[in-house]
Amino acid sequence: MITLASDFGSPYPAAMRGVLCSRTDARLVDVAHDFPRQDVRTAAFWLRELLPTFPAATHLAVVDPGVGTERRPIAVDAGEHALVGPDNGLLLPAARELAGDVDDVECYEIPVEDPESATFHGRDVFAPAAAEVHDTGLDALDYPRVSDPVDLSFPEPSLQSESARGEVLVVDGFGNAITNVDGSFLEDHWGDYAHVNGERVRIARTYDAVDVDTRILTVGSHGNVELAVNQGRGDEAFGVHPRSRVRLDLP
Amino acid sequence: MITLASDFGSPYPAAMRGVLCSRTDARLVDVAHDFPRQDVRTAAFWLRELLPTFPAATHLAVVDPGVGTERRPIAVDAGEHALVGPDNGLLLPAARELAGDVDDVECYEIPVEDPESATFHGRDVFAPAAAEVHDTGLDALDYPRVSDPVDLSFPEPSLQSESARGEVLVVDGFGNAITNVDGSFLEDHWGDYAHVNGERVRIARTYDAVDVDTRILTVGSHGNVELAVNQGRGDEAFGVHPRSRVRLDLP
Amino acid sequence: MITLASDFGSPYPAAMRGVLCSRTDARLVDVAHDFPRQDVRTAAFWLRELLPTFPAATHLAVVDPGVGTERRPIAVDAGEHALVGPDNGLLLPAARELAGDVDDVECYEIPVEDPESATFHGRDVFAPAAAEVHDTGLDALDYPRVSDPVDLSFPEPSLQSESARGEVLVVDGFGNAITNVDGSFLEDHWGDYAHVNGERVRIARTYDAVDVDTRILTVGSHGNVELAVNQGRGDEAFGVHPRSRVRLDLP
Repeated sequence: MITLASDFGSPYPAAMRGVLCSRTDARLVDVAHDFPRQDVRTAAFWLRELLPTFPAATHLAVVDPGVGTERRPIAVDAGEHALVGPDNGLLLPAARELAGDVDDVECYEIPVEDPESATFHGRDVFAPAAAEVHDTGLDALDYPRVSDPVDLSFPEPSLQSESARGEVLVVDGFGNAITNVDGSFLEDHWGDYAHVNGERVRIARTYDAVDVDTRILTVGSHGNVELAVNQGRGDEAFGVHPRSRVRLDLP
Repeated sequence: MITLASDFGSPYPAAMRGVLCSRTDARLVDVAHDFPRQDVRTAAFWLRELLPTFPAATHLAVVDPGVGTERRPIAVDAGEHALVGPDNGLLLPAARELAGDVDDVECYEIPVEDPESATFHGRDVFAPAAAEVHDTGLDALDYPRVSDPVDLSFPEPSLQSESARGEVLVVDGFGNAITNVDGSFLEDHWGDYAHVNGERVRIARTYDAVDVDTRILTVGSHGNVELAVNQGRGDEAFGVHPRSRVRLDLP
Repeated sequence: MITLASDFGSPYPAAMRGVLCSRTDARLVDVAHDFPRQDVRTAAFWLRELLPTFPAATHLAVVDPGVGTERRPIAVDAGEHALVGPDNGLLLPAARELAGDVDDVECYEIPVEDPESATFHGRDVFAPAAAEVHDTGLDALDYPRVSDPVDLSFPEPSLQSESARGEVLVVDGFGNAITNVDGSFLEDHWGDYAHVNGERVRIARTYDAVDVDTRILTVGSHGNVELAVNQGRGDEAFGVHPRSRVRLDLP
């Protein structure tokens, strides 16, 4: 199985599908192609959240502001999974999650004849490599090892028993602002009120615990604390966006 | 085969795809993931229109304003088809259509350990259940029967030979306002003019029977009378939206 | 394999998927369903660019402003590929590309009982025909030959060694304005400045050769000269849209 993810919108992903179908019989499954354009951090977050739901697969992911520069195309060995994409940090948070053990993550450089020639590496470099990695296996390929891949990690919050200082990692399509504070921080406080950046907000497991258009502090499907609004947009109601600082104070 | 439908937008449907791929070899086919958010009635309409085009399958559909409340997750036996989703009426219009005979529709409760715990039932409850229903079959599973599923039905129009009083069921992405009046009402009147809420409009089988930007009364692919505009939006031109009352008078 | 493309948006493509799954075991791969509505020329461009990435397949494509008129539904024999869709020019640029030799392109009329009856030919005419063409093969079917298909071709630019007069063919989702001038026109001029409709613009292979929000003249993945902006919209910055005249003067 090969999964596909990108910030290509439409119709460019079809070229990757076509190249893959031309080179491998692998099953193709789309993850998403509407990641915010050239936003490596947001895409890396979603890949880390979504790819672990899949069985062993080759994951082709392209969000690549550096296309046409000297950034390397890489393939990542992550236990039973492999990832293929640009060497800009995009793949590593997901790879660590997929491998389970960080030491099992190894990066390899995909050989490219003229790295600065093609403007559409998704079609011309990454899709062919994903087909090859899927069919042949990284072990059997002679890709040179990359000892210094570009890494990306999400900031850690500062946690005390009653207070957390973190930040918004991403805002999802519904406007939920997903923070880097682990959901366990809210445990034993369901129904209480917290202060979020100084304002009083209900802590609840489900949106319907508050009135429509009312703000809540909850835990999302990814297990992180989330600033949300029942049937509304949390990012707007809380006035936050990705990288906004968030201070949470429990009662 | 398992079909997938939801109001999740992107990228959350990928988590359902991943869970399904991890649990079953069933072929996956997307119906749509951009149903209007939490609009059970509109999604129920589309499922009823679209699912009967598929061969025998398990249909996973999630539009679920009640997630996290005590609403039950259900599986519906509809003849050669099965449906999996929330017990909020979403599945029943399609199930009746798929079963052919209403008496063949039976609902079962999907066992969940802690129904109020997960915020992403699509990934954590419905996708695993759809894989199980697909691979094992509802007959062989021991799900308890639900005798009182939440039902949903579309309003019936009031019809006379020359006049109909109905309402708009849904507006599609092109702005066509689909009513609950059966298309046969317009039979033998092609080319005539009707009055729609008192205004004179051409009755035609195809958009090009009128000038660009001109309103027409036609029959859509679902077999219902539709308020439309040639290369424009019918909902705006007629000033209607879902649940708007529509009075049609034939000449 | 059957590929699907249309301007149907959502959720109508699901009806084509359902009909196809009901009639054939062929693998289905989506190309795109958000082509600009009823814009045959733009869709024809994308089909010509994208379909050649696929292995031998039946390509179902529907952008069909003439639905309900007497325009014929056709199937096109293009070497190892077949195409199915309306006879309005949509399929021919791709068919010529897929066949390699123009003389290998043959068109056939898909028999329809009542061509003016159905408003949703994608579901009722084209999807069933695509399944039949895929499973039976055009050679074995008795479709009557069409000797005068509606053709569509893209305008040729007027080229001199230092100057080109062409036009914008399409604007992609990122705002890149793709012209009909072949990329080879810019060869040996990387890093130079050209005049685009009289204004001085850098010629570069990759966006990052210029500052953010700065215009560049480059070659896109389709091999054509493209008016673009680093991390911005080329169409807006250059004030162009499809069919805009473009004059390029090299230094």
